[in-house]
Amino acid sequence: MCRWLAYSGSPIFPEDLIFTPDNSLAAQSLHSCKAKVSVNGDGFGLGWYGERDVPGLYREVLPAWSDCNLRSLAFSIRSGHFFAHIRASTGTATSRQNCHPFTYGRWLFMHNGQIGDYELQRRRLEALLPDDLYARREGSTDSELIFYLLFHFGLEENPLKALRATLEEVARSTEASGSRKPFRCTAALTDGRTNYAVRFSTDAHPPSLFWQERSEHTLIVSEPLDTAVGEWQQVPASTVLVTDPGNKVRTEAL
Amino acid sequence: MCRWLAYSGSPIFPEDLIFTPDNSLAAQSLHSCKAKVSVNGDGFGLGWYGERDVPGLYREVLPAWSDCNLRSLAFSIRSGHFFAHIRASTGTATSRQNCHPFTYGRWLFMHNGQIGDYELQRRRLEALLPDDLYARREGSTDSELIFYLLFHFGLEENPLKALRATLEEVARSTEASGSRKPFRCTAALTDGRTNYAVRFSTDAHPPSLFWQERSEHTLIVSEPLDTAVGEWQQVPASTVLVTDPGNKVRTEAL
Amino acid sequence: MCRWLAYSGSPIFPEDLIFTPDNSLAAQSLHSCKAKVSVNGDGFGLGWYGERDVPGLYREVLPAWSDCNLRSLAFSIRSGHFFAHIRASTGTATSRQNCHPFTYGRWLFMHNGQIGDYELQRRRLEALLPDDLYARREGSTDSELIFYLLFHFGLEENPLKALRATLEEVARSTEASGSRKPFRCTAALTDGRTNYAVRFSTDAHPPSLFWQERSEHTLIVSEPLDTAVGEWQQVPASTVLVTDPGNKVRTEAL
Amino acid sequence: MCRWLAYSGSPIFPEDLIFTPDNSLAAQSLHSCKAKVSVNGDGFGLGWYGERDVPGLYREVLPAWSDCNLRSLAFSIRSGHFFAHIRASTGTATSRQNCHPFTYGRWLFMHNGQIGDYELQRRRLEALLPDDLYARREGSTDSELIFYLLFHFGLEENPLKALRATLEEVARSTEASGSRKPFRCTAALTDGRTNYAVRFSTDAHPPSLFWQERSEHTLIVSEPLDTAVGEWQQVPASTVLVTDPGNKVRTEAL
Repeated sequence: MCRWLAYSGSPIFPEDLIFTPDNSLAAQSLHSCKAKVSVNGDGFGLGWYGERDVPGLYREVLPAWSDCNLRSLAFSIRSGHFFAHIRASTGTATSRQNCHPFTYGRWLFMHNGQIGDYELQRRRLEALLPDDLYARREGSTDSELIFYLLFHFGLEENPLKALRATLEEVARSTEASGSRKPFRCTAALTDGRTNYAVRFSTDAHPPSLFWQERSEHTLIVSEPLDTAVGEWQQVPASTVLVTDPGNKVRTEAL
Repeated sequence: MCRWLAYSGSPIFPEDLIFTPDNSLAAQSLHSCKAKVSVNGDGFGLGWYGERDVPGLYREVLPAWSDCNLRSLAFSIRSGHFFAHIRASTGTATSRQNCHPFTYGRWLFMHNGQIGDYELQRRRLEALLPDDLYARREGSTDSELIFYLLFHFGLEENPLKALRATLEEVARSTEASGSRKPFRCTAALTDGRTNYAVRFSTDAHPPSLFWQERSEHTLIVSEPLDTAVGEWQQVPASTVLVTDPGNKVRTEAL
Repeated sequence: MCRWLAYSGSPIFPEDLIFTPDNSLAAQSLHSCKAKVSVNGDGFGLGWYGERDVPGLYREVLPAWSDCNLRSLAFSIRSGHFFAHIRASTGTATSRQNCHPFTYGRWLFMHNGQIGDYELQRRRLEALLPDDLYARREGSTDSELIFYLLFHFGLEENPLKALRATLEEVARSTEASGSRKPFRCTAALTDGRTNYAVRFSTDAHPPSLFWQERSEHTLIVSEPLDTAVGEWQQVPASTVLVTDPGNKVRTEAL
Repeated sequence: MCRWLAYSGSPIFPEDLIFTPDNSLAAQSLHSCKAKVSVNGDGFGLGWYGERDVPGLYREVLPAWSDCNLRSLAFSIRSGHFFAHIRASTGTATSRQNCHPFTYGRWLFMHNGQIGDYELQRRRLEALLPDDLYARREGSTDSELIFYLLFHFGLEENPLKALRATLEEVARSTEASGSRKPFRCTAALTDGRTNYAVRFSTDAHPPSLFWQERSEHTLIVSEPLDTAVGEWQQVPASTVLVTDPGNKVRTEAL
């Protein structure tokens, strides 16, 4: 299980979310409130849109709380659209290649959750990948695979449809594998303009997901960054949340 | 604040203490029971005596719970005398050079605690170091300095006297600096034959320290590795514990 | 292209080969004499047999010449059988998971060379892997795949046959892929008792491979560690070299 | 010995200098042309001015040629003023804290060269540091010390005077130490507006230093990034080069 946040709105310094709040992402790396495991110290990542069409990416294996480079980058780079993620491994190695967000072209993707008994399904699901993405896999996580499956299911043409098809395929695969473990997926995806965030599980316990909508920005988080009452809305289970470039939020049932 | 253990006795695989027990050192790296901070994820170290007169040393910046190399080394190397340490930084950088144990010649040293307002005293205390040790400093921790101060105070001739003199000097320096913060030091030292462990603080709250004495070994730990009643004895405050090569324990007031 | 050495014989400290000789493996990491690229600084690994049936493993992403842990391990651990490898990436990421040697059960494997246009063949070759090995892949190198293919081709029953079948399969696959690039493979394999080393290429330029046989040991190396005349014999192309536990060497055409 | 470059001018992406040219800084990390050692693989750093008054900083222990994060940052961040450095250690550890550039407040500093027999002079020179800088030292390099000495000698008031006084002091100290080794210093310093670069040695062999002045920018480099004739001017020995915010270059004898 991991923690993440997706910001879009007026350009800010990521440290305003990663380091400053009481329950900042760095604070959650040491002690998260709503995760199954409280420590998320198996690496982290920051992906941001700025001067280029494709995002910048900084991923490292150290815990977010102790990485001096993350502190400087989050202080120095101003961005109107970024993803940040802290990792708690569900078994795979601590390596940069296993850290989120993942990127391909102009897309960013990050994930909290896991595919139950992934090792039983890895071969079958990887077989679905297009050739170029199959050859491009760098790590060993189910998360990287889910990202690339989205392309198989038409991400470039219809992101919402691709999300639904991918979740269905993995859920079906998990069931077919005979696994009794759930497929849980709280994930965020963006092309640099529109954010898509899903809260999904094949059992009754999808990981937590919240959002905050203000005139200046939209913020989607695994758990609230502070305790301000009424500021944070919980995303219902089996829901996809979409933020358009004007930062308006709409939700749809998956 | 950090956590550590010192083993001497029949040769064992360090994994028996670092990974196997319920409250193993790796478990403590994720969630220690008796430390001020529960996570000790700012690097770790393993120093062991084996085929050579001087100890082997493996230190790394990753949390102990996630380092695949530590897992293999702790599984593969058999040793009758080793120190293991997990670090929770009190402000200095996460680097190998700041990880414990520290080594010089045949000596190993590791520390839990801190010198209050160290930055006020660093210059004055470093000035005491012999030339070769002054030039040899690699990191920026008070712990490395304490280790090297022991040599200034005659470690090679009389370890117990050097320990007492060093604790006194740092305590005096802390008071002279005007700091209101305590000097806390729960530390272990060895020349590969005799272990010296101290539990000390200038205030009433020295970090915890326990030991276990059996026919086959002596084990000194920041906190018990399991909940076996009667197995673990608490080291009193202001006490030095000495284990001779026959693994007999004696304690003395500091 | 990478550099490696395989030692079996009287127990020695690996530093005698990794750091001491004029053209030690660490020296080769900075400036190798016979490799296509002179710098081999994309990580390294040391696998050794000692107290356990399965080998110990230390792999790290730093260059071998600068890793303080490698220096201490190579100085401290005595072993009568070890593999050491320095990596020059042919495109895949610098990560521990991509460093050699690879291990599974009691086996160690390391490789110099590459599968031409690997990305064209990865899917087809991975499809051959047994389920447990398919799920176990951690990195993204052709080398890890070659190691696991050996199991598909019966490594546990007949290592020589498995080596031949794997080389043939990959050579066939490379040709079938339409790649004009060669498949080059200078590799070492052991179960902790017998060493197998191959020098192979689908073109006329297999990477260099040498061995040294003395009463006390056998040493197989990518390039000689010193300039002693008559000490080093070159392994012919398309040859497998086998050292039995008594360290006698025999060679066979592949 | 190390390699570095200092850019000021129209905002560009650092990859244009770090990765794109034939003899880019990344190329120099693998094989520099004019350095005493050809490989500069003991870490690197990038410091840049952008949205804040103080520079951003990214330093890492991997070789520059293989760090995926550096590649993304150099591609993503646009800056009109940045320093980049690749390190070849002269003996001290490979750690982030020993990588250049160093920063304090709005200042950046990087260095190529070394203080001869630094270990003989470290104590004496560190004693000169102001209290806050003494306590702030994180690494163990002579370079970090030289940077902090500049503050002792009035960097904030008169940078040129501070540079001269620091070089003189270290040269005097080297001579007084009895060392027969030279003090060599090719270094760059900036407050985010004006660049100061020096080429100095106590012997006749100061490290190389070049500059390129165009209408749009000034570039100062350890060695030319390409072979364009007439593009690069060599800085004479014992010279300080100053670029004002309009990117005009002037040189003065030290």
